[in-house]
Amino acid sequence: MNKAVILLSGGLDSATTLYFARKKGFSCHCLIFDYGQRHKKELRSAKKIADLAHSKWQVVKISLPWKGSALLDKNIKIQTKLQNIIPLTYVPARNIIFLSFAFSYAEAIGAKVIFIGANAIDYSGYPDCRPLFLKAFEKAAASGTKTGAEGRPIKILTPLIDKTKSEIIKLGINLGVPYRFTWSCYKGGKIPCGKCDSCRFRGKGFRQAGLRDPICKQ
Amino acid sequence: MNKAVILLSGGLDSATTLYFARKKGFSCHCLIFDYGQRHKKELRSAKKIADLAHSKWQVVKISLPWKGSALLDKNIKIQTKLQNIIPLTYVPARNIIFLSFAFSYAEAIGAKVIFIGANAIDYSGYPDCRPLFLKAFEKAAASGTKTGAEGRPIKILTPLIDKTKSEIIKLGINLGVPYRFTWSCYKGGKIPCGKCDSCRFRGKGFRQAGLRDPICKQ
Repeated sequence: MNKAVILLSGGLDSATTLYFARKKGFSCHCLIFDYGQRHKKELRSAKKIADLAHSKWQVVKISLPWKGSALLDKNIKIQTKLQNIIPLTYVPARNIIFLSFAFSYAEAIGAKVIFIGANAIDYSGYPDCRPLFLKAFEKAAASGTKTGAEGRPIKILTPLIDKTKSEIIKLGINLGVPYRFTWSCYKGGKIPCGKCDSCRFRGKGFRQAGLRDPICKQ
Repeated sequence: MNKAVILLSGGLDSATTLYFARKKGFSCHCLIFDYGQRHKKELRSAKKIADLAHSKWQVVKISLPWKGSALLDKNIKIQTKLQNIIPLTYVPARNIIFLSFAFSYAEAIGAKVIFIGANAIDYSGYPDCRPLFLKAFEKAAASGTKTGAEGRPIKILTPLIDKTKSEIIKLGINLGVPYRFTWSCYKGGKIPCGKCDSCRFRGKGFRQAGLRDPICKQ
């Protein structure tokens, strides 16, 4: 079985991506990041989902003491309205850091592909979720890694990149993704706030798919 | 004063780069990585050098549990002869990871440039030291960061990229780099081994510059 590294956050998109990769026949090695996020409870979700998918997982703990994001700094309020700018929940260079570790892990274990659940349709407008960035990063990594220099570049696969949230959910339901264990809310409270970007996209996705979100009461 | 982020390892190249950036008038913010390297004593050197340069520093601790390098795994022998291949001291995606954090830090503090002491002349052949990679990474980061998306991309500056080791040392001497506090040896013992790639390049550099290495007896 070919190995794949999966960036797994515990949210809806990355869980779907993991199940998609498994379905494609990969032996999945999940990377879970503990980076000081206020919705740290997503880590529990990530581990649970990886276990349910019979996949290996590894938690990487990193510190970003400079913060610079509402997800890392409780003094910055999480916006509850979408605006036409990059929101305050943007974490400086987050996916750049996550992908860097993914390339390191993939090289070390001999994986040829990295799966990331990035999505550029129903998303918060983070620049590190755009195909433009992901392609450029893949190219940079090809020139900066041993495998790349030896002509065996590692690929970044983004099966959800151009899907709407409801399409992702429908795909996930078909794949058997246990959405009841996923966590999306940025606030990380006992129940989802229903108001942050992440909750709103998730809610819209389930509504448009004509399904009930198993982690919400309504 | 414009801010700059400096990747500082405690070795000769990064110390010279820090002093070069200071000379250029930047307010320097050094990033020092504790990544499980066996020559961990370079961290002490890095802090000392940053202090002597009156620069801020920040240690980022990261774990690479998958190892995959002689610098991280004591079961892999450090080669003592240069070979025409990427050596076993290559750490998968190391500079990719370091630069990722540097971009995150730079964005958070409002620095417009990142200095890295990468060198593609007297070096071990690591692919992540090549101009090809550094340019590609800068481009990827421009498309994946808020500053980049807003038309204010952060630049990677590599003042040593095409200098020989002896040219670097001569430059550093002029800049007042305290080479007696730098540490280069991969083995991290009490005194430099004199045999690893890093010691050999350093030794050659001082010899060709007609200078005595202050940390060596001979």
